[in-house]
Amino acid sequence: MDTHKLKPKVLQQTIAANKVGRKPGYLYVPAGALKPRLILLSFDKDFIAENEFSTYEELFQFYQQHPHARHWIDVRGYADLPLLEKFILDFDIHPLQMEDVINDYQRPKVEEDDGRLFIISRMINFTKDKCINDDQLSIFTGTNCVITFQSDYEDCLDVLRERIKAGKGVLRKRPVLYLAYAIMDVVIDNYFVVLVQIGEYIESLEDSLFEQPDKKTLNQILNIRREVNKLRRIAWSERDKINEMLRDEDMVPDEEMQPYFKDASDHTIQVIELIDNYREMIGNLTELYLSNVSNRMNEIMKVLTIISSIFIPLSFFASLYGMNFSRENPHGGVNKLNMPELYHPYGYIIVLSAMGLLVLVQLYFFWRKGWLSWSG
Amino acid sequence: MDTHKLKPKVLQQTIAANKVGRKPGYLYVPAGALKPRLILLSFDKDFIAENEFSTYEELFQFYQQHPHARHWIDVRGYADLPLLEKFILDFDIHPLQMEDVINDYQRPKVEEDDGRLFIISRMINFTKDKCINDDQLSIFTGTNCVITFQSDYEDCLDVLRERIKAGKGVLRKRPVLYLAYAIMDVVIDNYFVVLVQIGEYIESLEDSLFEQPDKKTLNQILNIRREVNKLRRIAWSERDKINEMLRDEDMVPDEEMQPYFKDASDHTIQVIELIDNYREMIGNLTELYLSNVSNRMNEIMKVLTIISSIFIPLSFFASLYGMNFSRENPHGGVNKLNMPELYHPYGYIIVLSAMGLLVLVQLYFFWRKGWLSWSG
Amino acid sequence: MDTHKLKPKVLQQTIAANKVGRKPGYLYVPAGALKPRLILLSFDKDFIAENEFSTYEELFQFYQQHPHARHWIDVRGYADLPLLEKFILDFDIHPLQMEDVINDYQRPKVEEDDGRLFIISRMINFTKDKCINDDQLSIFTGTNCVITFQSDYEDCLDVLRERIKAGKGVLRKRPVLYLAYAIMDVVIDNYFVVLVQIGEYIESLEDSLFEQPDKKTLNQILNIRREVNKLRRIAWSERDKINEMLRDEDMVPDEEMQPYFKDASDHTIQVIELIDNYREMIGNLTELYLSNVSNRMNEIMKVLTIISSIFIPLSFFASLYGMNFSRENPHGGVNKLNMPELYHPYGYIIVLSAMGLLVLVQLYFFWRKGWLSWSG
Amino acid sequence: MDTHKLKPKVLQQTIAANKVGRKPGYLYVPAGALKPRLILLSFDKDFIAENEFSTYEELFQFYQQHPHARHWIDVRGYADLPLLEKFILDFDIHPLQMEDVINDYQRPKVEEDDGRLFIISRMINFTKDKCINDDQLSIFTGTNCVITFQSDYEDCLDVLRERIKAGKGVLRKRPVLYLAYAIMDVVIDNYFVVLVQIGEYIESLEDSLFEQPDKKTLNQILNIRREVNKLRRIAWSERDKINEMLRDEDMVPDEEMQPYFKDASDHTIQVIELIDNYREMIGNLTELYLSNVSNRMNEIMKVLTIISSIFIPLSFFASLYGMNFSRENPHGGVNKLNMPELYHPYGYIIVLSAMGLLVLVQLYFFWRKGWLSWSG
Amino acid sequence: MDTHKLKPKVLQQTIAANKVGRKPGYLYVPAGALKPRLILLSFDKDFIAENEFSTYEELFQFYQQHPHARHWIDVRGYADLPLLEKFILDFDIHPLQMEDVINDYQRPKVEEDDGRLFIISRMINFTKDKCINDDQLSIFTGTNCVITFQSDYEDCLDVLRERIKAGKGVLRKRPVLYLAYAIMDVVIDNYFVVLVQIGEYIESLEDSLFEQPDKKTLNQILNIRREVNKLRRIAWSERDKINEMLRDEDMVPDEEMQPYFKDASDHTIQVIELIDNYREMIGNLTELYLSNVSNRMNEIMKVLTIISSIFIPLSFFASLYGMNFSRENPHGGVNKLNMPELYHPYGYIIVLSAMGLLVLVQLYFFWRKGWLSWSG
Repeated sequence: MDTHKLKPKVLQQTIAANKVGRKPGYLYVPAGALKPRLILLSFDKDFIAENEFSTYEELFQFYQQHPHARHWIDVRGYADLPLLEKFILDFDIHPLQMEDVINDYQRPKVEEDDGRLFIISRMINFTKDKCINDDQLSIFTGTNCVITFQSDYEDCLDVLRERIKAGKGVLRKRPVLYLAYAIMDVVIDNYFVVLVQIGEYIESLEDSLFEQPDKKTLNQILNIRREVNKLRRIAWSERDKINEMLRDEDMVPDEEMQPYFKDASDHTIQVIELIDNYREMIGNLTELYLSNVSNRMNEIMKVLTIISSIFIPLSFFASLYGMNFSRENPHGGVNKLNMPELYHPYGYIIVLSAMGLLVLVQLYFFWRKGWLSWSG
Repeated sequence: MDTHKLKPKVLQQTIAANKVGRKPGYLYVPAGALKPRLILLSFDKDFIAENEFSTYEELFQFYQQHPHARHWIDVRGYADLPLLEKFILDFDIHPLQMEDVINDYQRPKVEEDDGRLFIISRMINFTKDKCINDDQLSIFTGTNCVITFQSDYEDCLDVLRERIKAGKGVLRKRPVLYLAYAIMDVVIDNYFVVLVQIGEYIESLEDSLFEQPDKKTLNQILNIRREVNKLRRIAWSERDKINEMLRDEDMVPDEEMQPYFKDASDHTIQVIELIDNYREMIGNLTELYLSNVSNRMNEIMKVLTIISSIFIPLSFFASLYGMNFSRENPHGGVNKLNMPELYHPYGYIIVLSAMGLLVLVQLYFFWRKGWLSWSG
Repeated sequence: MDTHKLKPKVLQQTIAANKVGRKPGYLYVPAGALKPRLILLSFDKDFIAENEFSTYEELFQFYQQHPHARHWIDVRGYADLPLLEKFILDFDIHPLQMEDVINDYQRPKVEEDDGRLFIISRMINFTKDKCINDDQLSIFTGTNCVITFQSDYEDCLDVLRERIKAGKGVLRKRPVLYLAYAIMDVVIDNYFVVLVQIGEYIESLEDSLFEQPDKKTLNQILNIRREVNKLRRIAWSERDKINEMLRDEDMVPDEEMQPYFKDASDHTIQVIELIDNYREMIGNLTELYLSNVSNRMNEIMKVLTIISSIFIPLSFFASLYGMNFSRENPHGGVNKLNMPELYHPYGYIIVLSAMGLLVLVQLYFFWRKGWLSWSG
Repeated sequence: MDTHKLKPKVLQQTIAANKVGRKPGYLYVPAGALKPRLILLSFDKDFIAENEFSTYEELFQFYQQHPHARHWIDVRGYADLPLLEKFILDFDIHPLQMEDVINDYQRPKVEEDDGRLFIISRMINFTKDKCINDDQLSIFTGTNCVITFQSDYEDCLDVLRERIKAGKGVLRKRPVLYLAYAIMDVVIDNYFVVLVQIGEYIESLEDSLFEQPDKKTLNQILNIRREVNKLRRIAWSERDKINEMLRDEDMVPDEEMQPYFKDASDHTIQVIELIDNYREMIGNLTELYLSNVSNRMNEIMKVLTIISSIFIPLSFFASLYGMNFSRENPHGGVNKLNMPELYHPYGYIIVLSAMGLLVLVQLYFFWRKGWLSWSG
Repeated sequence: MDTHKLKPKVLQQTIAANKVGRKPGYLYVPAGALKPRLILLSFDKDFIAENEFSTYEELFQFYQQHPHARHWIDVRGYADLPLLEKFILDFDIHPLQMEDVINDYQRPKVEEDDGRLFIISRMINFTKDKCINDDQLSIFTGTNCVITFQSDYEDCLDVLRERIKAGKGVLRKRPVLYLAYAIMDVVIDNYFVVLVQIGEYIESLEDSLFEQPDKKTLNQILNIRREVNKLRRIAWSERDKINEMLRDEDMVPDEEMQPYFKDASDHTIQVIELIDNYREMIGNLTELYLSNVSNRMNEIMKVLTIISSIFIPLSFFASLYGMNFSRENPHGGVNKLNMPELYHPYGYIIVLSAMGLLVLVQLYFFWRKGWLSWSG
């Protein structure tokens, strides 16, 4: 039962524990946060460097020594408050935005201030116990750097890192906004991977529905429906976010970038349409389950009805000739009318034959009704 | 049954009793209102004072003696009409607004007049009998004061009062609009606390659904669904209210305050999304309940069918050999064809064995159908 | 059955009979219309007079003799075409609007022409046979008069008339638009009264659902659902009407009147929210009814299954020992294997005990399944 | 079954046959079209003439001879391509519009070009086999004429023709736009007639639902639901069309005409509200049907349960005393414990009484459960 | 089962395989792509030529040699990357647009750049296994050419090609935008053909529902519902696309073209209305199926109840007279009260008659309940 529990309990309690009565814009280290890893990917048309620093000072020093390069500062883990406060000061981040970074259950959104963007994306993956796990990726853009924050060491961006390191292509030549776009694009592309996994899971649910449906199957169907609905809300927010960037010229001032964001917007629409497909498939599964339950009831009733209908009349006739009406009259004489059949030489044979005929008639009736087919 | 009654009867009757035929804008003391308590929290960068006054005059005198401080005038209870009319006069409050304060079943809303705000928030809590109780908090802002009205002595704002008294932080330095914002923010944060309680209740309903579902469980499910829908309407109104403040520059003229209201708006969206989560969970519970009812019916029918199918044919065969066909022919001679089995030395053994075989065949058939499993 | 009929048949036929093929803007006397009563309420700051006139000429003469007073001309009943045409001429009413007055199944709406308003409100009441009856109240405003038309002699405006006659308050001093507002406000306030009645009726339906639900109860639930939905449409139109007046400065040019109309708008929203509450409650009732039907089926099946499962096997064993296998072998000798139990001195006692044991085992099984509880 | 078929098959095939691969804007004679009848109604303030012409030339000549009159050219039937092409030329009609006239499955719409209108209305009627038949009426307005096209000889406009011929009223004095309005108004008024017929049909369905519901009734309910939904789509298009005319000053330039179109718009809203009423009534019917099926199942099960519960235990007791336990011990002696009841002088009477008592107890139990009432 | 699988698995995997981690705007050859066929249809008022070229160079040479003609370049198959890159260069196509061409699961859309259009349409057909197959048709317009890309060699545009080759009509004289319009129009017209096929399939499903409904039928209903919903989404996108072209004057600058696009827009609305019709029909089918299942259950229960109700009481009476109460008293004497009926000369006849009467009474009862009718 455990893996099919329906409630996002942990999330709520985290939210409640973190929020009530605290001052807005105040930073704290969330329980269970990891120690930050600081990874800096610096690159230029002709130059590429990936370093992991153990202290913020080393990172910032390296960053300042390469003013003409573009930088992707990649912070994984939040368990170091002073470090985060240095980011606030050095990179001019609003404290409320840094609070959103740490309270990492924010919806996808974008904020713009002085041409600098603060973007929240949600990276999803489909866990073993058939839940959709969504991690927050917070992206800040600066003049020559992109800073990303995430709570886990693992993510889905390695393909992009490889591309930057390998490729000599377009990514290294473009402004940092293109890097931010590329990050968002990889996150959205990853949705398709998760959707394929969900699709296969729904397929397996459908198969088990045809084999041996039980209450657990219904629970799994309801569970995946909830997860898909949750995913739909996230995807709609992603779409709103990207459309807001498309509409607002302050956010994407470079006109050459417009087609790329339009492309990303198309992708989110495709994600939403696939999700809607899945929602219909899951709705169909629910109806199939309920119709299965009815059909099994029908089948049970058919067995009961056939057997009862055949044997209850037979039993009656057998009981009939088990009656003890007596030929001997206490007042003398013979009651000739009392069950003379019992004394007929072929009485037994005739009754047995009549019973057999009755069975045949009933079987023919049930066969014509279609109740004798196996398939139900 | 009592705690699961479905109707907000008291509210309706209060509304109806209070409204019909009264002149709009006319004040009255509602039945059951408490005697007002007057609490004044005055503070400045360097100064803090909390006093409870027994008369309005004392409060107003203190208020006037500290023109440079900021004041939070906290009125709890409405059962003193002249007192309220003094507020109308001294603090320039529109009579219709004061009517809204007293008729405390208003939806969350905000009105602006000459740069001064009238805000209605609803403070919720989750009662023992699983209802959502919502109390109105009416907030007026002035140039150097915030006036709040509420009907009960208890509320959820103590955490904020402690923060003002304890902290030397940002709250004491900001304009009174920030105080109004902080009050609204604490009210919204408290929604998360209530949502956690609701979530745990839904969880307990789900557990009892798996243990022993009955009609009372369905009633509880329907009841909490109604409460959650009611909460959803309140949360939407809260959201609309804050978004109206965000859009209207007259309401939040200070640009530095904008991110805070944006933050509060995000919180209301999170509240609504959690509520939507719950609505889905409750919908799933309903479907599980109905599917449980069907499954129990299936189980009952299976027991009936198995036992009937096995014993009705057996009974027939037993009755068959209870027939009294007689070997003795009244016309003389022996009816050798009448039930010779009864006289066979192994007749009884053979019939018992045949019956046993029939039972085994039927059990195999039921086992293959999967009807013999306990889990249903 | 009669009171639960589902169709607004009379309305349709009236509409159809009245409309097809008639010239638009042509007046006629509707069937069953009452003879008009003409009541004039004239008042001023210092002066109040209520008269019922038997002819239009007397009324108009009185009206013209008091040019500085404000007048509420109250026409009840339409069965006098020339009278209505005099109103068209003397008070400059558009013929199509007068047609709307007489065809009194119009939705709530407002029209404005040259600063004069034509308002349609619907006064509702909850009839004995649990229908919502809605009567049209047509309101025209002039420079110094308000003319109202209604088809019945009875209405819900007496409280307002009393207030005008009794009070020396604000109503007598304000312009006629305030009188029009006050009329609309009383009509809306009356919605709360009807809603309380509907709420009590839904409550009684819920109670009868727990006592003895039958097909009639479902019919009543469906019927009140239809009525509440109809009420919802009317309330939405009322809300649209008032919001249109709020938005359009030509309609409510006096800025001091704005808060009053905003207040009325809030009231309509409260009405709609209460109605939505009721819709949910009714939806819950339907689900409870359906679940009741299923539960009763379950209960019936449980009784059948328990009794059949206990007695059908017992019958088999009784039949078994009713078989006539004979110890006497026609070929001579004794068939010692044929039912020796029958001749055992304790055979009957043993069989009876075995049967009792079987019953106990089955009862234990059913008790563990929870099938023996009364509550179902 | 035939009349309850669910599909608009003929329509689809007509559409498909007519459209694929044809050049847009190309005219053709649809299969089954009637030979056109040409009827001209010419009138003026003082003059009225109705003629049916056999050729277009005669009609056009008459039309040109009366340049100061207003004309209603009424074409019924499309089976004459050259005739239609003459209209295109002489009355300056766009070929695509004439194509819409002939492909007469267009939605209600209005197009405006140079102050001349092209309006499509749909005339509905309710056929014997309970379908809504909708015929297209295409209306062109010119400077002094209105041209209408329809496929059938019969329509619902005769009341209007009578009014024009009889009345000396407003219609003859107004511009042709008023004639176009009057035609649309009669078409809409006719919706109420059809709605009354549908309402009576729904009423009859409800009655038959209470008498003897069967599968055919459900089919009829589903069928009328589909028809009503189709009607709703048409009515919405009618409403959109009229609202578009209201909004667009090019279409209704004459301000005096505005109230009339506003009136027509109100009528379409009333039509839609009546249709929504019907949709709810039909939804209620479906629920009643399904609840009827459940109730009948309950009733069947109750009969089975009562009879089985009473007679199965009785049969057991009868079988019990049919057992053949023998008092004679093959080893000698008497088995006194084997069924001594059988030899008791009052044994039979006592058993019969006990059986009667058991029946009474069970009947009392069923009566308390409420299972013995007829009403179900 | 296979043809009724519910998931668009292949599509998902294609999307996932193609997208994740690839650089946006990068071209690749999709797996299974066909070798491109290059077909050029060049025409003028007086001139027409259709050629299939084996290399791009030949095509481009021919294209350049006829600068005053209009050209329809028709590319079928994508398996030649360099060829596509030549189109990008020579016809100035944006790489992201060419990516959309190859990733041919794009929604219908239109993009405009410098007066040149990029249009995506989806050509549908209804496959043997009752799925809707949709192929992408990508259309680029240039100053004197239209380029179309599609993945398969087969399409639905042959009727248009024939019209161009045969006709001397309007198509050859108009600008290329008209050609693009004509292509879109043929694609939309083809929707009606597919809809007729779907309609016939739904009709056949309905027939089989009345004959012998089983689980497979439900699966087919759910499957076609999913397909129709998918079709609806495509049709809505088509409509949005055409409406966007109507609204945007940059896209359709030529005013004479407006009526044609308005016509196409009307057609898409008709498509959507037909689809909505089908959705209702399918919804009706689902309800009919579920009601069929209930009705069959009712029928089964009726058979069981009739037979049980008749024979169980009869069996009891037969058993009653099979009891062995003995007239002989072991203590001497005769138990005259023990079953004297058995010794009555007409006992057997009377009992048989009573049984027959009981059967008749029950049959009358069942007949009055309407349970004896065949139709169910």
